[in-house]
Amino acid sequence: MTYQAPLKDILFNLEHLSQWDKVTALPDYEDITQEDAGAALEALGRFCAEQIAPLAKIGDEAHAQHKDGKVILPQEFHDAYAQFVEMGWQSLVHPADHGGMGLPKVVGGAAAEIVNGADMSFGLCPLLTDGAIEALLLSGSDEQKATYLEPLISGQWTGTMNLTEPQAGSDLGRVRTKAEPNGDGTFAITGTKIFITFGEHDLAENIVHLVLARTPNGPAGPKGLSLYIVPKFMVEADGSLGDRNSVECVSIEDKLGVRASPTAVLQYNAAKGFLIGEENRGLEYMFIMMNAARFSVGVQGVAVSERAYQHALAYAQDRVQSRPVDGSVKDAVAIIHHPDIRRILLKMRAMTEGGRALAMAAAGWLDLAHHTGDQATTYMAEFMVPLVKGFCTEKSLEVTSLGVQCHGGMGFIEETGVAQWYRDARILPIYEGTTAIQANDLLGRKVLRDGGETAQRFSAMVQDTIDALSQGGAQAQVIAKGLAQAKAQFDESLAWLLSNLRENPNFAFAGTVPFLMLTGNLAAGWQMGRAALVAQDKLAAGEDKDFMADKLAMAQFYAQHILVEAATEAARIQSGADAMYEDGLVL
Amino acid sequence: MTYQAPLKDILFNLEHLSQWDKVTALPDYEDITQEDAGAALEALGRFCAEQIAPLAKIGDEAHAQHKDGKVILPQEFHDAYAQFVEMGWQSLVHPADHGGMGLPKVVGGAAAEIVNGADMSFGLCPLLTDGAIEALLLSGSDEQKATYLEPLISGQWTGTMNLTEPQAGSDLGRVRTKAEPNGDGTFAITGTKIFITFGEHDLAENIVHLVLARTPNGPAGPKGLSLYIVPKFMVEADGSLGDRNSVECVSIEDKLGVRASPTAVLQYNAAKGFLIGEENRGLEYMFIMMNAARFSVGVQGVAVSERAYQHALAYAQDRVQSRPVDGSVKDAVAIIHHPDIRRILLKMRAMTEGGRALAMAAAGWLDLAHHTGDQATTYMAEFMVPLVKGFCTEKSLEVTSLGVQCHGGMGFIEETGVAQWYRDARILPIYEGTTAIQANDLLGRKVLRDGGETAQRFSAMVQDTIDALSQGGAQAQVIAKGLAQAKAQFDESLAWLLSNLRENPNFAFAGTVPFLMLTGNLAAGWQMGRAALVAQDKLAAGEDKDFMADKLAMAQFYAQHILVEAATEAARIQSGADAMYEDGLVL
Repeated sequence: MTYQAPLKDILFNLEHLSQWDKVTALPDYEDITQEDAGAALEALGRFCAEQIAPLAKIGDEAHAQHKDGKVILPQEFHDAYAQFVEMGWQSLVHPADHGGMGLPKVVGGAAAEIVNGADMSFGLCPLLTDGAIEALLLSGSDEQKATYLEPLISGQWTGTMNLTEPQAGSDLGRVRTKAEPNGDGTFAITGTKIFITFGEHDLAENIVHLVLARTPNGPAGPKGLSLYIVPKFMVEADGSLGDRNSVECVSIEDKLGVRASPTAVLQYNAAKGFLIGEENRGLEYMFIMMNAARFSVGVQGVAVSERAYQHALAYAQDRVQSRPVDGSVKDAVAIIHHPDIRRILLKMRAMTEGGRALAMAAAGWLDLAHHTGDQATTYMAEFMVPLVKGFCTEKSLEVTSLGVQCHGGMGFIEETGVAQWYRDARILPIYEGTTAIQANDLLGRKVLRDGGETAQRFSAMVQDTIDALSQGGAQAQVIAKGLAQAKAQFDESLAWLLSNLRENPNFAFAGTVPFLMLTGNLAAGWQMGRAALVAQDKLAAGEDKDFMADKLAMAQFYAQHILVEAATEAARIQSGADAMYEDGLVL
Repeated sequence: MTYQAPLKDILFNLEHLSQWDKVTALPDYEDITQEDAGAALEALGRFCAEQIAPLAKIGDEAHAQHKDGKVILPQEFHDAYAQFVEMGWQSLVHPADHGGMGLPKVVGGAAAEIVNGADMSFGLCPLLTDGAIEALLLSGSDEQKATYLEPLISGQWTGTMNLTEPQAGSDLGRVRTKAEPNGDGTFAITGTKIFITFGEHDLAENIVHLVLARTPNGPAGPKGLSLYIVPKFMVEADGSLGDRNSVECVSIEDKLGVRASPTAVLQYNAAKGFLIGEENRGLEYMFIMMNAARFSVGVQGVAVSERAYQHALAYAQDRVQSRPVDGSVKDAVAIIHHPDIRRILLKMRAMTEGGRALAMAAAGWLDLAHHTGDQATTYMAEFMVPLVKGFCTEKSLEVTSLGVQCHGGMGFIEETGVAQWYRDARILPIYEGTTAIQANDLLGRKVLRDGGETAQRFSAMVQDTIDALSQGGAQAQVIAKGLAQAKAQFDESLAWLLSNLRENPNFAFAGTVPFLMLTGNLAAGWQMGRAALVAQDKLAAGEDKDFMADKLAMAQFYAQHILVEAATEAARIQSGADAMYEDGLVL
């Protein structure tokens, strides 16, 4: 199945939903034009359609293989990665003074969607490298930056995040990996890390592992964790590669999906490590990096949704079966003409476009936060991250499942290829923090840290859009009504959670995932509402009529099919805990 | 992962929700006691836990293999099937005068849940044989019954349904397979059938294929289809096996799940076939058989949900991670103590118990319909079938997905085994008619054929339960409130659909799947309400307090977490079609 980057919709989002004008008013980005961004994304789209999209099936069938401590990937991955590096795609959003292209995150997020839409297994490698680059930029010493940044940003080396251990998943305080001082400023890292994405491979010359570990005399729990650079090959003073470090890939996992992405068990045997930043602040640095990674995983949700949608759409246009229910044609027609297939496809598309709009808007906030340091902006950006991660990935399960359904029996046959999107997507609500972790982050941190002020500002911005839509045409008014209902449900649920949290934390935390889904849905629906306002104006001006009419209809569909889920989630939040804690309910 | 048949809940449903007294007042079942049924199901549960449950992983890893026209299954499947036959489980619900045990469908449904909970791949073989037996019982000649029924009912032979062809999936009118008269009363069957479950294997001595085909001069489309018996081996006058018939297994499919169940492409080359019943009435016979098969597939949804629930529960009780949010314990605890994991598990359990209750209630209606022939009863039973098939299978996708989520990263690793339930379940909303086909059957046939009368009787019965619950304790009143809301949403949606159907069929049929989900949800919630009434009485009488308190709490949880989805579906039905048919919306 082919893949085409959804450039037109991406560029619409970039122009109208990402706060493009504010982002490109930032000193770092004042030279960037829409044309530059569009040209870069178009070139990337072409490369991904041609070179990366075919990897999806190849990698799914071949899997990453483990042999004698090495990970073997199909030759096609080597060729594609070499081109990816040559074209400089890894460097897209990284600073020019380290060799990067220096584009904003709004462009980076769009690029990440394209790469991961083509193949999530492939996309994971640059995604993790991006995370390592961010961590080094924020917390590395000048020497570390000089040593590692340039080859990472070029893609010549790749990066990993080493957090999880068998007993320490969501609960990183239980990490046991030791970092013992060698006496020369370096540390001997010893322990076992699991679930390390692209933890071993030879697409690149070197791998820069960022490893969470604890010094012998540090505090117990999360406050005793520090972050270390552990390169696969030691780096000499001149930048050339030296000895192999003592970190070994013991095995890789046989997984439900993203099977070409090697998920490694890494054994560190007194491997040489270099402390990043200050001791015992490792978790803090990791969380900075994780915010970026979580955003990117949310984008993967949009990406795999788009892929599944394109696949289902093509099948529905091609497969002929049964006469139409309205009797308009005497013969069997392509199934896209049957109302339920139309509903399925539009639902897939609405969730995909809604997720994309949310991610693009969040990316704009992240750019503004990152470059201004303004607290209110930063809080809003950080409020959005669990929404992008939680909502877009949970929705990707629905979208990819509908993609299978649209294919009927053919969907269940692996050869068809659509089951792969269903399998690949299933990791998204799990890694980089499960949906429950995102939901706890949303309520426990992003809402509570300022007593709900950011959440209320978010709600007020939604209200502004509702007000504008209410002045519009018939479709805009339908959207306004849907948004107003969902916003009221959000406001009530927020108030309920805030008033119950202290007295009865179990009751409140029983509702965090429904609250995340309600808030994510409202946030995406809000962006679709903003898009509808633009589309309405453009239609009135006679610009790009087909696209704008579709956008308006999709926003209306979103309001009438997806936003209406908010009622259910609000009910779950506000009364759902009662039965959960009935006396004597045994599990 | 082990499996235990949920006997206690099954027997509760049998006793209190299946109309047991009415069923066992039927002449055919007047000798059957609860004790008999309980003893049979207990023995089956033990057998399945010990012999069938281990097959799930074995079969998932080995897959069915195809070699030189033969299908190879792991030896363990042969051993288990031989024991299954020896113990007589295939014969459970079939008439005593053909060697069956003669138990009602309410027991048969329970048994099907147990077998498929242990392993769906294994369970598919007897499920299809049951279908073939039903078709022969209803439409076969005396000679055909004498020849085929006894070995099918014993399990010595197995049966298949041959409907689908590459160009004829949901649209069976497009079937091309030919049946040419041989001049001796037999027919030469020629064509290609695909997606034939257990279409080839050697667990049993013979396979009885029921094949939909058309005679050369019959009417075009669905009205020219006839049903034929095509045995794999010809049967001699004395019942012994003769020549191999000319039907060949060309290949089997590589599937997302139920990988040990061979899904065959069968090539019929002038294979000898025997007409069942009258010519051109094949589709009618097939539909009788399909009602039974659709019910059974709904039960598979409950079965795989139960399996996933047991798996997730065991993990959540075992896995220690993070301190509780209420600060009640200083150390990390088993994750079942975290509110969101508790919510996930209860949601899995509520959907499973609700589905089971719905299936058991439907089985009771099917028994009563089958043995009384009363039209109102038959219409009610047939109204329930698409609900069981559609709702329980769609919910099994959610339940098995939550089962993966509950495991965190381990859920994505195939070795853990929980991803298998997610993969296996994915076929359920597709085969034996997709959810859309069920939904069209519900609205287009089961609701419309009597102008909505059966649907309104259903609604009136729900109201009776609401009235009774309203007189009850606090929990009963919460359930009554939830049911009353969902019932109102059902009534409104039904009225909307009936009033729009003729004028604007596309708008109505765009809402059939939401209507199916709303109705199935209400029907399951209604059964949970009936269960709550029983539990309330038993609690007052001090009987079986733990179980009854749990049942009451689960009914409340169902009302507060699952029934509340009805609001969303009602909104989708009543206003969701607008945006779908906006002028110019392009797909």
